[in-house]
Amino acid sequence: MKKNLKKETENIAKQAKAASRSLAVLSSSAKNAALKDMAAALLEKQAAILKANQKDIARLSSKNKAFIDRLTLNGARVKQMAESLLEISSFKDPVGELIRAWDAPTGLKIQKVRSPIGVIAIIYESRPNVTADCIGLCFKSGNSVILRGGSEAINSNLEIYNILNGVIQKHGLAKGTINLITTIDRQAVDHLLKLNNYIDLVIPRGGEELINKVVKVSRIPVIKHYKGICHVYVDEDADLNMAENICLNAKLQRPGVCNAMESMLVHRDVAARFLPGMLKKFKDAGVEIRGCAFTKRIANWVKLATQKDYRTEYLDLILSVKVVDSLDAAIAHINEYGSHHSDSIVTDDNNAAAKFLQQVDSACVYLNASTRFTDGNQFGMGGEIGISTDKLHARGPMGLEELTTYKYVVYGCGQVRT
Amino acid sequence: MKKNLKKETENIAKQAKAASRSLAVLSSSAKNAALKDMAAALLEKQAAILKANQKDIARLSSKNKAFIDRLTLNGARVKQMAESLLEISSFKDPVGELIRAWDAPTGLKIQKVRSPIGVIAIIYESRPNVTADCIGLCFKSGNSVILRGGSEAINSNLEIYNILNGVIQKHGLAKGTINLITTIDRQAVDHLLKLNNYIDLVIPRGGEELINKVVKVSRIPVIKHYKGICHVYVDEDADLNMAENICLNAKLQRPGVCNAMESMLVHRDVAARFLPGMLKKFKDAGVEIRGCAFTKRIANWVKLATQKDYRTEYLDLILSVKVVDSLDAAIAHINEYGSHHSDSIVTDDNNAAAKFLQQVDSACVYLNASTRFTDGNQFGMGGEIGISTDKLHARGPMGLEELTTYKYVVYGCGQVRT
Repeated sequence: MKKNLKKETENIAKQAKAASRSLAVLSSSAKNAALKDMAAALLEKQAAILKANQKDIARLSSKNKAFIDRLTLNGARVKQMAESLLEISSFKDPVGELIRAWDAPTGLKIQKVRSPIGVIAIIYESRPNVTADCIGLCFKSGNSVILRGGSEAINSNLEIYNILNGVIQKHGLAKGTINLITTIDRQAVDHLLKLNNYIDLVIPRGGEELINKVVKVSRIPVIKHYKGICHVYVDEDADLNMAENICLNAKLQRPGVCNAMESMLVHRDVAARFLPGMLKKFKDAGVEIRGCAFTKRIANWVKLATQKDYRTEYLDLILSVKVVDSLDAAIAHINEYGSHHSDSIVTDDNNAAAKFLQQVDSACVYLNASTRFTDGNQFGMGGEIGISTDKLHARGPMGLEELTTYKYVVYGCGQVRT
Repeated sequence: MKKNLKKETENIAKQAKAASRSLAVLSSSAKNAALKDMAAALLEKQAAILKANQKDIARLSSKNKAFIDRLTLNGARVKQMAESLLEISSFKDPVGELIRAWDAPTGLKIQKVRSPIGVIAIIYESRPNVTADCIGLCFKSGNSVILRGGSEAINSNLEIYNILNGVIQKHGLAKGTINLITTIDRQAVDHLLKLNNYIDLVIPRGGEELINKVVKVSRIPVIKHYKGICHVYVDEDADLNMAENICLNAKLQRPGVCNAMESMLVHRDVAARFLPGMLKKFKDAGVEIRGCAFTKRIANWVKLATQKDYRTEYLDLILSVKVVDSLDAAIAHINEYGSHHSDSIVTDDNNAAAKFLQQVDSACVYLNASTRFTDGNQFGMGGEIGISTDKLHARGPMGLEELTTYKYVVYGCGQVRT
């Protein structure tokens, strides 16, 4: 049985690799036609999707509310999935783009051309819309995809997969273009992560535990983000009204997501003016404040923060606050305690802004704006397959372009090396 | 003792991370001045380098000639190391380059800006010039570097390192900017490869065994090339004189390197015209031919190739030869048996060329040119830190630009997300 699992997983990966060869050279119009049909098929078979989703939810009596919410599909959510596929069909095809071209002294004409990566495995939890989004983005960027969703969403994922794979077959595309691992045996993931001969990239999407496991086991390159411990730093030269708006938005607009503010830093010279009103507004909004000793002197009702608080992604109505002596101290704190995701400075001082933006070592650094903008759609990339806090290959929001690599195409007329 | 080793390795990595913060914002002129002084220091202290190198060689009585040659330094090689550093000082600084800029509908101004990766570990074997080259390239691209050379070159590496680190100190740059692990205990590498909190990238340079080990153990992203099984495919519409020149060059100009041809594919329709003369020239040059049955029928003195031959990087005067039925068969063979490094088609047929260049899944694909051009210098990148057969982050020759990542710098005027 176990041996079969290994073999089956390997067969899926082999088939995906074979399919990736023809997908890599499929025309943009053929890909877009299939994507439009996928969108239509989801809408048409909405009832079947919702029925499968109900089966998943029925098994879940013991889970918490947020978890159930993430898992639940309804008409609006299915429509959103279909619209995403349509949107992806309208994006420019990244494959074949000429990134750069030059002539070498030897007369060789060198082109750097964008090309698909090959086979991408995506390991994710709960939200079934990820199934359709990832299929759409990988397909459009010319990559075969192997999906492994959470066991709690198996019926929903399987239904969505079967509908979309039906379109792949109807369009006469290679078997193995899109793949779903359906066994609930967790060992399948271990097998999958060893198949570096067939799979070119793994993107895990989920909690820290999942990410850590994938990084530990995988022989395949991984792109990931662990956490979003995002900061807003209110500088001594900040417009304090603007700072208040930005901090409220960064914390409250959607507290459970990775680009929400988890930690607010305030320059000492404006702390006495800024913090009382700011903290009161957070308190009124139900935010628990965990602050440094300075913060507590200003508002004695706040809890004293521990070092651990400054390293915690709450994803909740909790905020750590620290008063810092200088811009340098703010930058050092963010680089030490942050997660290299998204960090913002509020200031009217151009020099302070330039220093912060250069020295904060994060995927996205902001001047006078909320951290909540770190998002493929907000950046104008269209769909996103995730956000990377890695520095290799892709950093920040990842769209179609980030699902490609490049190759050097070299045109000669008989050149040999001397 | 073992515990100390772990602690020591971690301290080096911590120090490198701290140094990377100031190196990331060091001006181009300050970096170039240090690189010029490094070049001068190597020339000035040449005698000490050669003396240390002699010590390494003296310990090596049992090793083979090629190995000793790679390890040996002389005046010319030290001069070459110095010239590489000078050349690197003359290259454009990649750090801070504006890759792209656009305005989002929200009014946010988004810039994609090139920035250093952080801390790069390089694990390599034998050739001591790698020590200076890697220090130069990482330093110029704003990255701290941790070097771990082969134990057989420890005295040479240490001497070169001490000279270059003396320049770092003289210029008042952070301790930890360049680092060498000097213990010969191999466990140090195991410790190093777990330090993903401090080290951002590992580049192993050496034999397949070393690469496999690093990939297996590392928790840090790895960029590598395993092998160079490069092909030249002689198409039915090839200019056969050109094909002969290219094949001779690709095999013979330097057989021991990764971009040399290991396997020659010939279209069936030209095999009878092309192979007899071609094989005779290879024979005269001392090349052992391992061919398919068709090849053997044309020249009965050739050895019959096994499947393993087509997957072997000989790095020697041995060549596998296969007659194929079609362009498609050539492409399929290369994608299956090759190493995704460098492959060339010789043809006058534009359609065949376009198909080959698009469908061969290699870092560098050539039309009517020798595979020997895959090289940072030949591509006009200046120095190269290696060649990647990976698809993530960097593919093909890797120069300064490939040692950088990017960050998104976002300028707002109070924007919050609605």
